[in-house]
Amino acid sequence: MKNTVIALAAAGLLSTAVAAPRKPTAPKKSAQEILAASPATDWRPLDPDNTLLMELATGSVLIELAPRFAPAHVANIRALARGGYWNGLAVLRVQDNFVTQWGDPDGEDAAKARPLPAGAAPKLPAEFSVPISAVGKAAGFTRLPDADGWAPRTGFAEGMPVAADPKTGQAWLTHCYGMVGAGRSEAVDSSNGAELYVVIGQAPRGLDLNITVVGRVLKGMELLSALPRGTAAMGFYDKPEQRTAIQRVSLLADLPAAERPSLQVLKTESATWAQLLDARRYRSGWFVHSPGYIDVCSASVPTRAGP
Amino acid sequence: MKNTVIALAAAGLLSTAVAAPRKPTAPKKSAQEILAASPATDWRPLDPDNTLLMELATGSVLIELAPRFAPAHVANIRALARGGYWNGLAVLRVQDNFVTQWGDPDGEDAAKARPLPAGAAPKLPAEFSVPISAVGKAAGFTRLPDADGWAPRTGFAEGMPVAADPKTGQAWLTHCYGMVGAGRSEAVDSSNGAELYVVIGQAPRGLDLNITVVGRVLKGMELLSALPRGTAAMGFYDKPEQRTAIQRVSLLADLPAAERPSLQVLKTESATWAQLLDARRYRSGWFVHSPGYIDVCSASVPTRAGP
Repeated sequence: MKNTVIALAAAGLLSTAVAAPRKPTAPKKSAQEILAASPATDWRPLDPDNTLLMELATGSVLIELAPRFAPAHVANIRALARGGYWNGLAVLRVQDNFVTQWGDPDGEDAAKARPLPAGAAPKLPAEFSVPISAVGKAAGFTRLPDADGWAPRTGFAEGMPVAADPKTGQAWLTHCYGMVGAGRSEAVDSSNGAELYVVIGQAPRGLDLNITVVGRVLKGMELLSALPRGTAAMGFYDKPEQRTAIQRVSLLADLPAAERPSLQVLKTESATWAQLLDARRYRSGWFVHSPGYIDVCSASVPTRAGP
Repeated sequence: MKNTVIALAAAGLLSTAVAAPRKPTAPKKSAQEILAASPATDWRPLDPDNTLLMELATGSVLIELAPRFAPAHVANIRALARGGYWNGLAVLRVQDNFVTQWGDPDGEDAAKARPLPAGAAPKLPAEFSVPISAVGKAAGFTRLPDADGWAPRTGFAEGMPVAADPKTGQAWLTHCYGMVGAGRSEAVDSSNGAELYVVIGQAPRGLDLNITVVGRVLKGMELLSALPRGTAAMGFYDKPEQRTAIQRVSLLADLPAAERPSLQVLKTESATWAQLLDARRYRSGWFVHSPGYIDVCSASVPTRAGP
């Protein structure tokens, strides 16, 4: 136990010591130059068991799942994808500066709702946060020195934006742009991952710790963010014909290898990612003022085409 | 001078004393109930001299200008609108999670660029910030008690999100969702308000103090945020036919009274606005966790149909 605490402290999630503010010197390299110079070892391939491919008429969306933060929801989402649950369902809701949401248009009507495939649960316990011990070093957590108003600690783990509170001992994924969550009703255990949403505006951090976040859009975000906004309450579409049809959602692992998109994700524990964050903190070139600060939703972890 | 300092301290911009954190008790009323109960005196009409109407084929966008923060740019924008400068020009750039930008597609080509109308300057001094004394009580500045990572002080003035730094004595409009700025090239005095952009994603606060912010979209934001993203560098459109045509941009004051949209804006110095912010800080109902915090970009100032 003592060793665990030490390991976590080293990872920064429990530690109160934050790196002293550095001198705001402009980085010598631009973000493009930093990425161009990044070693191959700073990138990782997609994990086929943790990546969804959502096919729309306009193109494909790739979503990376976060089993470390929402193990039960991710397992259910795998079962839903394997059972073809979303094939032929639709984007139901686009609320400006908030979320795009998809699922079963008849999901609220027990008589018409699409049955869940074998192995998929109708509801799951809330996974709003996990013990800090489940994140920490194991997930390569890197803490941001920048203060955050919403949480005592923020940083990144396995490509995802993370917050943590040493007082409660909990860590959670934060609602940044492109993060994907599982819609729920009033009951905290009413979500199962069948109805998902993605953040398309200013980070609604007030949702943190109130709903289960399951992953992040890696590619194709613009196919979900540029959809017409719904005109009914909460951005739901008024008429069925306004919805965007979902052709197919698959887990990459269930696709023949030749059909799996090849993408690499920058490791958030890499020196390249640290340099990219510094390039945003300490601006140069066109910028005449350097903020000397970023927040956990200021930057999305880059991806690039795989080999 | 001493009186001025006292007045500013009272307004909170120079004061270091922040309201003590209150007990996070859930508000008794929802945002809808707070708005429904708001007195008529908490609302103000549009100022026709400070409101632009941008007409697209899909509908109209209303933009409130901020002459207190960018007097020269706002004066130039008035001259550009009066001269019909934007009529027939286009939305040129939509970069996902960043900005939508409009202006003259041939603006960079001196031979083909649309001439500026009489009274419009080709370039203006930077208006990245103004002395705090220009904001303060005169603009009804209300300070947020919530700490902000990007600036020592934040709050609202005349319906706009504002930041300030007592050390520099400067205040500025913050790049929140829906805020409108004047594009510039390398030179800080290269903008004139002819090319404008609006924030359509996570607040790019790193732009604060680097570019002149001129106002805020009050209505029709979804007509600019849901446009297809450009596929060329920085989200510019590859082909002219991908652009969205601007039919007309008018200053409300130049339209016959019957053609002016009637809209009211909630006063940010009102009790109603303070209650709405509290309703976001201290959640109830569906929420099981209350953040006890908001940031200056968490909430947009409401509007409603005028009488």
